[in-house]
Amino acid sequence: MTYRTDIEIARDAKKKPIQEIGEKLGIPSDHLLPYGHDKAKVGQEFIDSLDDRPNGKLILVTAINPTPAGEGKTTTTVGLGDGLNRIGKKAAICIREASLGPNFGMKGGAAGGGLAQVVPMEDMNLHFTGDFHAITSAHNLLSAMIDNHIYWGNDLEIDQRRVVWRRVLDMNDRALRDVVTSLGGVANGFPRQSGFDITVASEVMAILCLSSDLKDLQKRLGDMIVAYRRDRTPVYARDIKADGAMTVLLRDAMQPNLVQTLENNPAFVHGGPFANIAHGCNSVIATKTALKLADYVVTEAGFGADLGAEKFMNIKCRKAGLAPDAVVLVATVRAMKMNGGVAKVDLGAENVEAVQSGCPNLGRHIANVKSFGVPVVVAINHFVTDTEAEVQAVKDYVAEQGAEAILCQHWAKGSEGVADLATRVAELADSGVSQFAPLYPDGMPLFEKIETIAKRIYRADEVLANQSVRDQLRAWEDAGYGHLPVCMAKTQYSFSTDPNLRGAPTGHSVPVREVRLSAGAGFIVVICGDIMTMPGLPRVPSAENIMLNDAGEVEGLF
Amino acid sequence: MTYRTDIEIARDAKKKPIQEIGEKLGIPSDHLLPYGHDKAKVGQEFIDSLDDRPNGKLILVTAINPTPAGEGKTTTTVGLGDGLNRIGKKAAICIREASLGPNFGMKGGAAGGGLAQVVPMEDMNLHFTGDFHAITSAHNLLSAMIDNHIYWGNDLEIDQRRVVWRRVLDMNDRALRDVVTSLGGVANGFPRQSGFDITVASEVMAILCLSSDLKDLQKRLGDMIVAYRRDRTPVYARDIKADGAMTVLLRDAMQPNLVQTLENNPAFVHGGPFANIAHGCNSVIATKTALKLADYVVTEAGFGADLGAEKFMNIKCRKAGLAPDAVVLVATVRAMKMNGGVAKVDLGAENVEAVQSGCPNLGRHIANVKSFGVPVVVAINHFVTDTEAEVQAVKDYVAEQGAEAILCQHWAKGSEGVADLATRVAELADSGVSQFAPLYPDGMPLFEKIETIAKRIYRADEVLANQSVRDQLRAWEDAGYGHLPVCMAKTQYSFSTDPNLRGAPTGHSVPVREVRLSAGAGFIVVICGDIMTMPGLPRVPSAENIMLNDAGEVEGLF
Repeated sequence: MTYRTDIEIARDAKKKPIQEIGEKLGIPSDHLLPYGHDKAKVGQEFIDSLDDRPNGKLILVTAINPTPAGEGKTTTTVGLGDGLNRIGKKAAICIREASLGPNFGMKGGAAGGGLAQVVPMEDMNLHFTGDFHAITSAHNLLSAMIDNHIYWGNDLEIDQRRVVWRRVLDMNDRALRDVVTSLGGVANGFPRQSGFDITVASEVMAILCLSSDLKDLQKRLGDMIVAYRRDRTPVYARDIKADGAMTVLLRDAMQPNLVQTLENNPAFVHGGPFANIAHGCNSVIATKTALKLADYVVTEAGFGADLGAEKFMNIKCRKAGLAPDAVVLVATVRAMKMNGGVAKVDLGAENVEAVQSGCPNLGRHIANVKSFGVPVVVAINHFVTDTEAEVQAVKDYVAEQGAEAILCQHWAKGSEGVADLATRVAELADSGVSQFAPLYPDGMPLFEKIETIAKRIYRADEVLANQSVRDQLRAWEDAGYGHLPVCMAKTQYSFSTDPNLRGAPTGHSVPVREVRLSAGAGFIVVICGDIMTMPGLPRVPSAENIMLNDAGEVEGLF
Repeated sequence: MTYRTDIEIARDAKKKPIQEIGEKLGIPSDHLLPYGHDKAKVGQEFIDSLDDRPNGKLILVTAINPTPAGEGKTTTTVGLGDGLNRIGKKAAICIREASLGPNFGMKGGAAGGGLAQVVPMEDMNLHFTGDFHAITSAHNLLSAMIDNHIYWGNDLEIDQRRVVWRRVLDMNDRALRDVVTSLGGVANGFPRQSGFDITVASEVMAILCLSSDLKDLQKRLGDMIVAYRRDRTPVYARDIKADGAMTVLLRDAMQPNLVQTLENNPAFVHGGPFANIAHGCNSVIATKTALKLADYVVTEAGFGADLGAEKFMNIKCRKAGLAPDAVVLVATVRAMKMNGGVAKVDLGAENVEAVQSGCPNLGRHIANVKSFGVPVVVAINHFVTDTEAEVQAVKDYVAEQGAEAILCQHWAKGSEGVADLATRVAELADSGVSQFAPLYPDGMPLFEKIETIAKRIYRADEVLANQSVRDQLRAWEDAGYGHLPVCMAKTQYSFSTDPNLRGAPTGHSVPVREVRLSAGAGFIVVICGDIMTMPGLPRVPSAENIMLNDAGEVEGLF
């Protein structure tokens, strides 16, 4: 049997006009702003008209800690959406947009895989509907206005050493991480050290994804802290008078994008904040719109459940008033083996024992998700080399944890391969068994919030933080930011802060290196380890092999 | 009588679905890629299918040297397009896209004015169809790949002091003009001095606007010189292997954008290179496509005729094999008065003498245009305060020059006010009287090309250039670049290089400060005076007053 590549499958997709996809959800074509024939934005007026409708069921897809073997979280999200439609349910999926820059570094960027993909794949990995470009523009307009304010007299008395607002580009460009700007003399301003992050790391991205509407967006943009004065009082974006123009630049970007799966089911692809220094979920406005239009909405969170699901629950759901009805935890036999100590090259050989010894990673995620009061089902994303005995070992283990694991073959078979999972997920979501609650109350002191996550999710013994971190948290509490949730930035490869510590470690410590306030997004970023906010290109960037072929198709991007 | 503002008029526009506008030109809706309901890109396959069709007539709209009074070149372009349609001709217009950054500095950005506008105005002054964002991405990908190449060992032996490829943003940001990048240690590369230009100043923009198709685009991108080695040999974008990926990023941006005038006539709005360090015309692909679809195509060149029309003729037409059939030279009574020495505050009072003494500026432009072998008609863009005697003075003067001046009232009356001009322009274009030839042959030595323009267009006595400039030109001739046209970068306010020297000066010198090779775009940039490639924001940037009103409309942008 020969397999087609993802891009070959995507190119063969029988796409329907986007208006037909919108019709499935009852969106009149007048209210769909097309971008080409296969992408559209949903108009705000139509979204406003949905307020009184009941919400559909919300299903979160998350995963074990990622391994180099790959888990297929997006693939499962897409497959489950198709599966629900297949069994007669009205379902939509909600996923994030891809960042442009990294696609020119490493190959990648598909939205799903095999027969469970969202299309048009090429557009989604290039400019798509321009949302990220709008965020780049809005972010950098604020940057320019800050330096311009200083240039023309600095009425706000900004301490030029304490400008915390950097610039962004959607590009992997290590040369821009650390720069000195305004060189060249009087006409160019006051030289100072600053730098660029990648666009998805912008607080504007996090805000766009958490805002309920344009008014809320502008308020949050205004709330962002861009600099401090010598007396350490904050200067807000509102003080720079940038919030209005930034909102204008983001007006279209706030509208959710509608595309389709290979099986012509509706997919909202909107927003894409970093999953470390931000919360890593698609936009609230897309999720809420989908919930008004579909009976089942399948969405996804970044990284493994320790980071992604935790933030989905404690940040996105808390802030947006959302409550998941069921969680799907994606695992693969291969990833279990890697957690059980098998090297990547040896993954092809049957090794039931390794599967079994890797399972505790999965077990802990199951328990963690349950601790939010939400029912969980495990999706075993089938790989061609998996043996029956290996799959059975996972099923047995999950059953011991009081949950159910279902084999899914959406990659190879599309919705047909995931009907069992869809049936079970719909039952769970409909059962009303979910009693979602965030892990900690708003009123808990900030440091305790960090400890709660570290101990209850990571199963660490302690959180290590020096006095300046603790003082900073207390200062923010005094300044009225104590009610904010915390946004953990740590390695995604382990429950601990050591990426090499697989499985289900205990007895470790969580060292907090730094804390940052995202006052507009509305969370405290807790940095545990090295977090890179501007990637670099590898020795041979994939860009070198990306080109148009004679048919005008993109080669080398996937 | 009360006048509505441009934005009020634009908002009241009775726009037709863009598919209907396309139909007027015979574009099947399958081949129109919509961006919302009122913008679309024309598909490449359809463009390719037009090859065998005859071309319509090409009409260039240019102007006298701009004054603070405003001439209304774009307004006249739009009005003339509507006027031709009104008199029963199948006509389309071709103009440039607006740059995003400057709109947040000074108010402005309308496409036309009064009843002669292109819509949707707001979109066109914000992200439009994302073309400029794509150029920003493509440009900065190359920048990142250059530093990445050096970082990983510098196999091409780039002299890090001689990297000439900078970065771009579509933002007015003086702090980025001159920066040091790659600070922060080993992982961030080798520190070096560089900077950012505004996106419209990118050579990629000039290339996109001069390329005939995607293949030509990629070839030209590859031809760009990005750095030099210690032995002064050039390193090309092709050596960095960036040309393929840049082409992929620019694939959609290469497709012409179709919008409409207030009177629902087709308008192509595509590309927008600087008119100083580049040639300042809309894209060749848009102009050529329009010529296949319409019987009359009205297009526009940047600044006054000494810069804009000269480059249109000597660069765009020469390179693209185009030949204008008629030229419309826009003048206003007010601008004549300013050329005649009247201050802006006194423009309201009748002053026939001042009009007469300002007319020689117009006269010289008429003669210059004729020297290209193209018939010219003067459009007097009517202003409410103009008196009959003043208008008559211009008409009389133009008649003395062997041309005709026609009063146009498209701003106040739309196509009705410009029917006379349209009739005369159509006659001229149909007459076959045009015998277009560029001003100098390809084979002329580069310095002589500069002298030819300086003496025959600017009427200068001499060109001043030091030995290093002359040596550089000779070196490029030796390297095979001698056949390129020259692209003059000088002040737009005067025939001379002194912006305060209005009217029709003679006896001046043209000092060449610097020459640059745009090897991909295919011209030698000749810099005479200070040319700013990254604007700054003013003390009170218009961004401070740009916001959404309660109806969700953009305020403060215009």
